[in-house]
Amino acid sequence: MPSYTAPTKDMQFVLHEVLSVSQSATPGYDELDAEFTSAVLDEAGKIATEVLHPLNAVGDQQGCVLENGVVRPPEGFKEAFDQIREGGWTALDCDPEYGGQGMPYVLATAVGEQFSAANMAFNMYPGLTHGAYSAIHAHGSEAQKAAYLPKLVTCEWTGTMNLTEPHCGTDLGLMRTKAVPQDDGTYKISGQKIFISAGEHDMSDNIIHLVLAKIPGGPDGVKGISLFIVPKFILNEDGTPGARNGVTCGKIEEKMGIHGNSTCVMNYDEATGYLLGDAHKGMRAMFTMMNEARLGVGLQGYAQADIAYQNALEYAKDRLQGRDVTGDKNPDGPADPLIVHPDIRRNLMDQKSFVEGARAFTFWGATLIDHAHRAQDKDADGMISLMTPVIKGFLTDKGFEMATAAQQVYGGHGYIEEWGMSQFARDARIAMIYEGANGVQALDLVGRKLAQDGGKHVMAFFEMIKNFCKDNTDEAMAEFVGPLKTASKDLQAAGMFFMQNGMKNPNHALSGSYDFMHLFGHVCLGFMWARMAKAAQAALDANASDTAFYETKIATARYYMARQLPMTSTHLARIETGADTVMALDATHF
Amino acid sequence: MPSYTAPTKDMQFVLHEVLSVSQSATPGYDELDAEFTSAVLDEAGKIATEVLHPLNAVGDQQGCVLENGVVRPPEGFKEAFDQIREGGWTALDCDPEYGGQGMPYVLATAVGEQFSAANMAFNMYPGLTHGAYSAIHAHGSEAQKAAYLPKLVTCEWTGTMNLTEPHCGTDLGLMRTKAVPQDDGTYKISGQKIFISAGEHDMSDNIIHLVLAKIPGGPDGVKGISLFIVPKFILNEDGTPGARNGVTCGKIEEKMGIHGNSTCVMNYDEATGYLLGDAHKGMRAMFTMMNEARLGVGLQGYAQADIAYQNALEYAKDRLQGRDVTGDKNPDGPADPLIVHPDIRRNLMDQKSFVEGARAFTFWGATLIDHAHRAQDKDADGMISLMTPVIKGFLTDKGFEMATAAQQVYGGHGYIEEWGMSQFARDARIAMIYEGANGVQALDLVGRKLAQDGGKHVMAFFEMIKNFCKDNTDEAMAEFVGPLKTASKDLQAAGMFFMQNGMKNPNHALSGSYDFMHLFGHVCLGFMWARMAKAAQAALDANASDTAFYETKIATARYYMARQLPMTSTHLARIETGADTVMALDATHF
Repeated sequence: MPSYTAPTKDMQFVLHEVLSVSQSATPGYDELDAEFTSAVLDEAGKIATEVLHPLNAVGDQQGCVLENGVVRPPEGFKEAFDQIREGGWTALDCDPEYGGQGMPYVLATAVGEQFSAANMAFNMYPGLTHGAYSAIHAHGSEAQKAAYLPKLVTCEWTGTMNLTEPHCGTDLGLMRTKAVPQDDGTYKISGQKIFISAGEHDMSDNIIHLVLAKIPGGPDGVKGISLFIVPKFILNEDGTPGARNGVTCGKIEEKMGIHGNSTCVMNYDEATGYLLGDAHKGMRAMFTMMNEARLGVGLQGYAQADIAYQNALEYAKDRLQGRDVTGDKNPDGPADPLIVHPDIRRNLMDQKSFVEGARAFTFWGATLIDHAHRAQDKDADGMISLMTPVIKGFLTDKGFEMATAAQQVYGGHGYIEEWGMSQFARDARIAMIYEGANGVQALDLVGRKLAQDGGKHVMAFFEMIKNFCKDNTDEAMAEFVGPLKTASKDLQAAGMFFMQNGMKNPNHALSGSYDFMHLFGHVCLGFMWARMAKAAQAALDANASDTAFYETKIATARYYMARQLPMTSTHLARIETGADTVMALDATHF
Repeated sequence: MPSYTAPTKDMQFVLHEVLSVSQSATPGYDELDAEFTSAVLDEAGKIATEVLHPLNAVGDQQGCVLENGVVRPPEGFKEAFDQIREGGWTALDCDPEYGGQGMPYVLATAVGEQFSAANMAFNMYPGLTHGAYSAIHAHGSEAQKAAYLPKLVTCEWTGTMNLTEPHCGTDLGLMRTKAVPQDDGTYKISGQKIFISAGEHDMSDNIIHLVLAKIPGGPDGVKGISLFIVPKFILNEDGTPGARNGVTCGKIEEKMGIHGNSTCVMNYDEATGYLLGDAHKGMRAMFTMMNEARLGVGLQGYAQADIAYQNALEYAKDRLQGRDVTGDKNPDGPADPLIVHPDIRRNLMDQKSFVEGARAFTFWGATLIDHAHRAQDKDADGMISLMTPVIKGFLTDKGFEMATAAQQVYGGHGYIEEWGMSQFARDARIAMIYEGANGVQALDLVGRKLAQDGGKHVMAFFEMIKNFCKDNTDEAMAEFVGPLKTASKDLQAAGMFFMQNGMKNPNHALSGSYDFMHLFGHVCLGFMWARMAKAAQAALDANASDTAFYETKIATARYYMARQLPMTSTHLARIETGADTVMALDATHF
C-alpha cells in the first residue's frame, strides 16, 4: 500500500525563504509567520495522511454507484468529509463575513496540495464547492450571497460547475441548454450537461449547481450565455432546503481514474434557476474564477507526481535488485537497492526536481492571486493571467509524465493495481483535460495572454528574470544564472518568431503554441530553481542548522539546470519551423 | 466505439518500396512478392477488424476470472482463438517440419502488428505460445520438439514464460524456484512465479510452461539458472495430455490494462519438469529468443499508438468545435472540425509520423532477424542485437506517449471508458515494463550492445547512414539528408562522450543511457523517414498513380525532420552533463 507524507518542511522553505510571504504588504500576509503556517500545515498534513489517504485506494476500487437517482460515494468518504468540515478546512480562505477564516489563498493552496496529493478524487468535492463559492461571492446579489455562501463555506452544501454538453466542450458557443424567463424573475432551465464532477451524491444537505445556459432571444454564440444558480433542493423561505428541483443525475461515467468522484450526466428538466450576475455575461463571470480554478488543476498535476515520487523513492531504497557497477553498496545483502543505479536516480531526480520546482511556481502564482485580490494589484493580476495557462498546462502534462515515471520504478509491480502506482497515473491523467484541455491552454497563452495589455505582462516577466540575473552576479550563482539566461533567451526568441510571423499567418504562431507553453514552463521552473538555490545558499551562509536540506536543494537545482532546462532549445527549434510542416496535409490525406 | 482498419497499403509500401523484400537473397524472401503479401495482409486485416477488435473492449471490461482453479477469459475469446487457429495464423512463420508455413518473420510481424493493434490482450495468448515454440525449437531435443512443437504451432496448446518471482524481476540471479533432479531424469520444480501472462485459461488443451529455476548445487547467481518445460498436463505415452501436473494459478492480478489477458501468480509444487537445453545455461537459452520477443513488444507499443491515432483522426474530422482562425472551413455548419486547428494537427502529425516511422523501423528489424536466422548473416545478427533495445525501449515509450496524445484529442471523452481511448493508453503502458523494463533496455544498449564485437555493429550503423547520405546528394533529398546527418552526429558525439568518460567512471555513461536510447531511436526513425521519402519520390518520379499517398509520405517525412528530430540535441546536451548531477545526492537526502 502506498503512503503519503506532507512535505511541510519544503512548503515552509518556499513560503518563507523563497517567497518571504510574511514580509509582503498584502493584507493578511502579516499573519503568515513561520510558526503559524507550520502549525496549519502540520495539522493539515495529519488529516491528509491519516484521514484522506487511507480512502484513496478505497475510492478507486469502489467508485460511485447510482441507484434510484441517488449516488453513493465510496465507503468512508462521508465521514472524512465531516472531519474536514468540522476542522474548518473548507473555510480557510473564505470571506469571514460568511463564516470563512479569511486566510490568504496561498495558505489554502498549500493545504490543497496536501489534500489533493493524498486523495485527489475526494478533494474535488470541497474543491468544486469552493469554485461555486467564489462565483457567487464575486457575482451574486447580496441576497444570493446571504442565502448560499455560509453553507458553501462550511460545505454543508456542496457546489458544481456545469459547462460541457455532449456536443460541446471547448466551444461553448454551441451550447443548447435553455433558460426560459418566468414571471417571478426565475428561469426554467432545460438541457443536458455532462462530465459534471461531484454532480450528485449524498454527502451534503444540498447541491448548488452553477449552470451555463442560453436565454432564448439573446445574442448568438458565447455572447449569449448566462450563468444560473440551480439548487438541488429549492430553498424554503427560511433558507432551508425545500422542494426537489428538476435536476437529476442520468448516469455516472466510467472513467480511467478519479473513480471516487462522481462524474455525472446531469439532466435539467425545467429546473428552477436564478440568474447569477448579468444576463448574457455568464462567460465573463466564469472567467473571473478561472485563474484560481486552473491553478488548482495545475496543483493536482504536481501533487499526484509528488505522492507517486514519494512512493517510488521508498521502493527504490527498499527493493534489492542488481549491483552498483562501481562497487557493492549493500555487500551483506543479496543485492543493492535500486537507488544505486544511475538510471533510477535520473528518473527520481527528474521527479524530485519537477515536483519541488512546480510547488514553488504554484505557490508564487497563489501569492499573485492574493496580491491581485487583496491589494488590487493590477500588475499581479496581469502576471497571474499570463502564468495561468502555463501553470495549468505545463504542470499537468509533466505531472502525468512524472507519475508515469514513478510507476516505472516499480517495474511490473507498478502496473498491477495492488501497489497503487497505477492509480496516481490514472488520476493525474484527467488534469491534462478538464478545466480547459492543455491544447486550449496553449492557445490561450499564445493567442491571448502574450499580447494582453500590449504585451506588458510578458515583458514584465522577462524584466523580472533580467533583474534577477543582474542582482546575482556572484560566482556561486553563476551556474544557475547562466542556464536561466539561455533558457529565457530561447523564450524571447520564440515570442519574437510569433510576432514576426504570426501577423501574416496566425498558424505560424498557433503551430508552436504547445511547444511554447512547455518552453515557458521550463523557464518558470528554471527561474524558481535559481531562486531556491539562492535562498538555500543564503541559509548555508547564515550557518543554518539543517545543512543537508539546503545542500540537497542546491544539488537539485543543479540537476534541473543540467538535465531539464536544455529542453528549451528543442522547443524553440520546433517553433521556428512554423506552420509549414504542421499544416501541409489536406485533412483527407492524413 | 473505436474501430480499426489494417494499414495494409502502408505495410505494402514499407515491405516493397522501402525494404524491397522480394529482391533479397534471403531464403523464403522470393515468395514475398507484392501480390502475395497483399493477399495475406488483407486477409489478416479482416480477422483483425472483424474478429479481434470487436472483443477488445469486451476483454477490457470483463477481464479474466479465476474460479476453483480455472481461469475464464472474456466472452468470445475462445471462439476467436479457434478462428485464428483454423485460419493457420499461428503457424505463419513456424517450421514446416512441425506443421508451420515457413513464411519469413517479417510477414508474421506485419500480421502481428494488425492483431496486436486490434486486440493486444488477446494477441498475447498466441504471442506467448510463439515464444515457447521458439525456445523449444532452438533448444529442445528431437523428442521434445516432436512432442510439443506441432501442438504449439497450431496453438492447440499454448505456452508461457516464467521468469519473475515476487522478490526478483530484472535481477534473476536472486531466483529461488528450485528444480530437484529425479532418478528418471526429470526434475521436481517448486517455487512461485508472478506476472505470468496467459498463465492459466481454458482456451487450449494444454499449457506448456517454460520455467527458469535453479538446480541445487549449481553455480550462484544467473549462471546457475536452468530452463524447464513444465506442462500443465503431463503427456501420456501417446503424446496426449494426461495427468495434471503440480502447477496451479494462485491469483489473477488486477492491472491497469490488458485485462483480457490472464496475468497469473503461478505456484509450482513439485511439478514435473523437463530440462530444456543444458543445465545452468537457462539464461543463455532465454537470450536467444530475446531479440524476437523484444521486437514483438516494441511492435505492441506502436500498434497501440496506431489504433489510437486512427480513432483520434476520425474524431478530429467529425467533431465540430471552434473555427479555423484563417477562415471558416465548414461555413454551413455550426463550427469547423477539430482538424482545422494547428495544435490538433501538430498532435496528429506527431502520432502519424511516429507510427509510420516505427512501422518501417520494426519491419526493417524483422528482416534483420530473417537474414540472421535464414541466411546465417552474422552482421544482420549483430545489427538486430544492437537495435533490439532501441526498438523495445523507444517504440514503447513513444507508443504510450502517442496513445496518450490521441486520447487528448477527445478531450473529456478520451478520459471516460466509453470511447475506448483510455484502454489504448492503459494497454500500451505495460509494453514499457515487461520483457525488460525500458531502463534495463537502455542499460543493455549502453552497457553491452554498443561495445559488442568491438563496437563493430554501431560503427556499421553509422556507416550505413553515411553511405545513404553519400548516395543521396541530389537536391530533392537535401531536406532529409541534412537533418539526418545532424542527428547522426549527435548520436556519434554521445557515443564518444561515453567512450571518453565511461572508462574512468561507468556512471558517466549509465547516467545518460536513457537519453541515449531515445537519441538512437530518433536517429533510426529519421533514417527510416529519409528512406521513405526517397522511395516516395522515386514512385512520383515514375508517375505512380496514387500521388496523394506519396506526397503525404514526403510531407510526413518533412514533419518528422522539422518537429521530432531536433530532440537529438537536447538528449546530447543532457548526456554530456555526465553523472555529476545525477549521482550527487546521498540516498538518504532525496
